[in-house]
Amino acid sequence: MTKARIEHLKELMSRHKIDTIAINPGPTLTYLTGLEFHLMERPTVMLYQRGHKPFMILPKLESTKLIGSNLPMHSVTYNDDPSTWQEAFRAAFKHMNLEGVRIGLESTRIRFMEMNYLQTAAPTARFVSADQIFSELRVVKDENEINDMRRAVDIAQQSLREILPMIKAGVSESRIAGELTVAMLRAGSDPELPFSPIVASGPNSANPHAAPTGRVLEPGDLLVIDWGARVNGYCSDLTRTFAIGKLEPELERIYETVLKANMAGRAAGNPGLAASEVDRASREVIDQAGFGEFFTHRTGHGLGMEAHEAPYISSANTELLEAGMTYTVEPGIYLPGKGGVRIEDNVLVTEEGTVTISDFSGELMIL
Amino acid sequence: MTKARIEHLKELMSRHKIDTIAINPGPTLTYLTGLEFHLMERPTVMLYQRGHKPFMILPKLESTKLIGSNLPMHSVTYNDDPSTWQEAFRAAFKHMNLEGVRIGLESTRIRFMEMNYLQTAAPTARFVSADQIFSELRVVKDENEINDMRRAVDIAQQSLREILPMIKAGVSESRIAGELTVAMLRAGSDPELPFSPIVASGPNSANPHAAPTGRVLEPGDLLVIDWGARVNGYCSDLTRTFAIGKLEPELERIYETVLKANMAGRAAGNPGLAASEVDRASREVIDQAGFGEFFTHRTGHGLGMEAHEAPYISSANTELLEAGMTYTVEPGIYLPGKGGVRIEDNVLVTEEGTVTISDFSGELMIL
Repeated sequence: MTKARIEHLKELMSRHKIDTIAINPGPTLTYLTGLEFHLMERPTVMLYQRGHKPFMILPKLESTKLIGSNLPMHSVTYNDDPSTWQEAFRAAFKHMNLEGVRIGLESTRIRFMEMNYLQTAAPTARFVSADQIFSELRVVKDENEINDMRRAVDIAQQSLREILPMIKAGVSESRIAGELTVAMLRAGSDPELPFSPIVASGPNSANPHAAPTGRVLEPGDLLVIDWGARVNGYCSDLTRTFAIGKLEPELERIYETVLKANMAGRAAGNPGLAASEVDRASREVIDQAGFGEFFTHRTGHGLGMEAHEAPYISSANTELLEAGMTYTVEPGIYLPGKGGVRIEDNVLVTEEGTVTISDFSGELMIL
Repeated sequence: MTKARIEHLKELMSRHKIDTIAINPGPTLTYLTGLEFHLMERPTVMLYQRGHKPFMILPKLESTKLIGSNLPMHSVTYNDDPSTWQEAFRAAFKHMNLEGVRIGLESTRIRFMEMNYLQTAAPTARFVSADQIFSELRVVKDENEINDMRRAVDIAQQSLREILPMIKAGVSESRIAGELTVAMLRAGSDPELPFSPIVASGPNSANPHAAPTGRVLEPGDLLVIDWGARVNGYCSDLTRTFAIGKLEPELERIYETVLKANMAGRAAGNPGLAASEVDRASREVIDQAGFGEFFTHRTGHGLGMEAHEAPYISSANTELLEAGMTYTVEPGIYLPGKGGVRIEDNVLVTEEGTVTISDFSGELMIL
């Protein structure tokens, strides 16, 4: 599997005219090698030059991990004295011809620290973003990847169903977040969740990225729960909004609008269609209901080993959808001071159109 | 509190001759502002110029978070079309005089993506690491911070004690890791643990950074558990090694050696002493027992809002210890193919010497 993935990478590098890439710990490194490293204060970088064995620069205490890879690799290790780390980069680069070449980087992974080591070791090289390569590499999922994502959706849904009885007026946001986290781990999620659940009630629900607080649910609240599980590294990412008791008519109206926008967005995707068209389908519903200015984010994002990845479902993204792509559809309306609604599902593009993987009911549930 | 911290930052910037800094989401940003943002694909950067209000560049959907800060700030927001993001950086920089200045960065946080936006917006500025400033800013903990760390230690210890009865031959590493994670969350840890527990048995325990596998504990195994909880953002980070039934004499010997090294390292710290002296105290014990080559990492690292931070307890670090610093002491011996032992405690430097915060017994426990 890693061999086919490296072949795919080679082909993409050739198409994008990048000879050498440098990869930090993260999903792409794991995707290509099966190896997992943490991104910490010790630099751990894989260099790959088309047609050559990958070259790994890593701390000595991590070196036994390389035994776990079925990918033949060169490696150089260093000890815990930071003054020796630059030398490890120099040693690795000595094996490569990097005179004036372009070195492609994953721009959300490589940090100023690694940049400095790389630039000092290869002063004539030019460093460029290779994000396009990495996103094309991972954007179409195979059957195994899709199965893992389906299980991640199942675990998330089952866990929320399990804790529904405890969600009611008088309970705090943070307690709900804690119980939901525990339920997902018990149900078999990887220990590293894609993100800590968002549980936002009343006025807090008007903040799309709220962190759970000690606020206690009150009758009349909207309650946004945005949560996901992970299976073999693959994420689910769902949102449901609940009513705590009877809602004011305006809040009911935004719920109905978001639900329609969610359905329109889920139905819109098709192979060959631009990602922006999915955004347009959802956004139109909200615009027409007069809430356009309160839908402050894109309609969704790709989903896979990262909770946010390509294809981004935004008005600006002209990327064409393809069978095997997976993404979220998550329109929302946020009324400052009053509350917000978001309904998020996970969608798979197939040759015949889109399939929604998640099936937790979207009808307004009063708790 | 944030005001005093900004004053401290100003003083450090002046001492290190840095006029302007750029900070990404992470502990330093939270420490200074009380705000929490995730590091994702949308750039979120705080610029701070000595004597001016901080300037925050952030996605529109995060902007309500700024209301939560008691720090007066300028801000500029952008929407979900990435082609507009550079403009937000330009707008922020227009308010500052950045002609030829040095801009200090946190080198393990700022990524190639942010670098590109910053460099394009301030082409004549020079970007340098300001790691020394950030580590001095946060390295001495106040009473509140220490109390949070003590609670994080208590929660971790109580959770391991709670699950001890299920740890025995026949149980898998990953099941133990799952139960330990659940126990910490139930005991009140922040939902985002400092790291997923390491549970490594038998030959796996010879890998200091092993991830839990499906391997089932067997009689004669060493079992390394490296785990920690988080309270109000502050971490604990502990390790204990257990015997599953009777151990071979060589494994018993390395256990006894590591325990002595742990005690020597914990006793060594004192205000005014170099961090390297703590490393030397632990390392000497292991060297003298003839296992020096199998102790492949530094003796410890600072602990606070990050699981690894200053002061690093390594042979190369001449930084002087000060009252209020907190760090781990975690010597280990790893015999490839046979197994490893690590014993890790959390230590606080006081005016009178060091205090070990953790008190889970270090004596070899046979499970």
